[in-house]
Amino acid sequence: MSKSLLVIGTVAFDNLETPFGKEDMVVGGAATYASLAASYFRNNTKIVSVVGEDFPQSFLDTFRAKGIDIEGIQIKKGEKSFFWAGKYHMDMNTRDTLDTQLNVLATFDPVVPASYQNADYLLLGNLMPKLQKRVLEQMQHRPKLVVMDTMNFWMETAWDDLIDMLGRIDVLTINDEEARILSKEYSLVKAAKKIMAMGPKYLIIKKGENGALLFHKNEVFYAPALPLEEVFDPTGAGDSFAGGFIGYLAKTDNISFENMKRAIIYGSALASFTVEKFGTRRLLEISDAEVEERLQDFVDLVQFDIILEENNA
Amino acid sequence: MSKSLLVIGTVAFDNLETPFGKEDMVVGGAATYASLAASYFRNNTKIVSVVGEDFPQSFLDTFRAKGIDIEGIQIKKGEKSFFWAGKYHMDMNTRDTLDTQLNVLATFDPVVPASYQNADYLLLGNLMPKLQKRVLEQMQHRPKLVVMDTMNFWMETAWDDLIDMLGRIDVLTINDEEARILSKEYSLVKAAKKIMAMGPKYLIIKKGENGALLFHKNEVFYAPALPLEEVFDPTGAGDSFAGGFIGYLAKTDNISFENMKRAIIYGSALASFTVEKFGTRRLLEISDAEVEERLQDFVDLVQFDIILEENNA
Repeated sequence: MSKSLLVIGTVAFDNLETPFGKEDMVVGGAATYASLAASYFRNNTKIVSVVGEDFPQSFLDTFRAKGIDIEGIQIKKGEKSFFWAGKYHMDMNTRDTLDTQLNVLATFDPVVPASYQNADYLLLGNLMPKLQKRVLEQMQHRPKLVVMDTMNFWMETAWDDLIDMLGRIDVLTINDEEARILSKEYSLVKAAKKIMAMGPKYLIIKKGENGALLFHKNEVFYAPALPLEEVFDPTGAGDSFAGGFIGYLAKTDNISFENMKRAIIYGSALASFTVEKFGTRRLLEISDAEVEERLQDFVDLVQFDIILEENNA
Repeated sequence: MSKSLLVIGTVAFDNLETPFGKEDMVVGGAATYASLAASYFRNNTKIVSVVGEDFPQSFLDTFRAKGIDIEGIQIKKGEKSFFWAGKYHMDMNTRDTLDTQLNVLATFDPVVPASYQNADYLLLGNLMPKLQKRVLEQMQHRPKLVVMDTMNFWMETAWDDLIDMLGRIDVLTINDEEARILSKEYSLVKAAKKIMAMGPKYLIIKKGENGALLFHKNEVFYAPALPLEEVFDPTGAGDSFAGGFIGYLAKTDNISFENMKRAIIYGSALASFTVEKFGTRRLLEISDAEVEERLQDFVDLVQFDIILEENNA
């Protein structure tokens, strides 16, 4: 039943500084976190990305060990991988970018290998909208579900390309601030209506430690983030969420609203592991039992029973 | 089954400015919103507060019409009511205080009428901790449940009195920022553990448009706020929430964790009405059918079904 999933996005090095520590040259990037989260479902997951000659073979082996197809990761001889350095504030919700070196990303031209071109599920990780479009155009048939992540930077620098992409996708994932910028509305309910009118049938608004909202037509679903005792490093939480979300949908091959709710809970669960250690470390070691236990935590967290007189009595 | 409820707190005038409008001399105050929210449950609700000669008789009649006992509202001849002026920012989560005039509050000495002294449920609205203690000391027997609201201001100016009060109450309600200040912990889970160790068996952390968390021992419950199309005026949302919470508990006279979850959903529902119009206007006009409908919205908002293999299969 499981369907093939294609993930595009960055595979990179990060220097990370949080109130709990500092680590340099940690392997990160949107496609890294998303594909590793999706691989939890033992899907047929494939990456399109680019790295430099400096990228460790050992981590490419890690992808393979997780069943991830890396034929689509271009390795640029003599060049360096994309690099980002950031520092999180005490609240862990805000961060400063200390350094960004595009390196191989500056000239990235995504190539979708022939063996990827029939993928049923497509996650367009946060990249320049024109590059996201280049990938979509190389698909032999329109995937069953296209999920796109983006960010405020593209709203400021590539507005027309971004709007063009909104007409080509099914699900958009952005954070609350970005939803307000994109829609010019403060109410997230109004923002969601406007954004869905721009193209995507589904909108996921990510709110960090405050969970995520899924909108579709007049329906809305709220998935809380699990209150965690320790948050060591929020990097990759959003990408793990997106990868877990589409990974579950690809595994179950069911894109009903009810199943999307479940997918969001799985995405939230996988994201909750990611933040427990630096980089991808925690994501690489989770067991099925741990995930099951965490899903039960989500059930317990929001479950209540109110007998509604008009509806249930 | 319904038990008597005593609410202490401010009854005041507010000048309110939001992105959607401006209204002056709106009747507000913590005890106003909390008692009106609690009155939805047709409880035997009583207020202890103080106003000046300028306070409108018509609003005192409004309290009475809602079945609220106002014997404990002192009316100070020749004095003015407590006054607050505030302006909300575009995100509606942050606000600037433009003016505060204590007036009658400066010399407030709360007196609990004899007919109130056996109340079973007590809501100590946000006030100087010493005044909250004065009320508690006038009760003939220790109420079945004491809920206390407070704010960062008292953490800065009356730390010892506040800590003393924490040992005397059952439920503390504060916002996330205040929980972090009080506990000196950033993780809300760690913060909750520390704060409960200071006295309260239950802790409610309010997160505004991001809902509320209820902690008790090792349990945690998350109630989302309903995503609303229109938020005109957030004033009184927290007090409506607290009043709805304890009002439901007094009505059902059941302080189990399961029932507290329901009480939080009711509190959230009542708060969601308050913000739809300026001041108390919306709270004064809600019908049972509207509340039932909104509770259903909460059920729909968070309801999902995941079959957990280990637990359900």
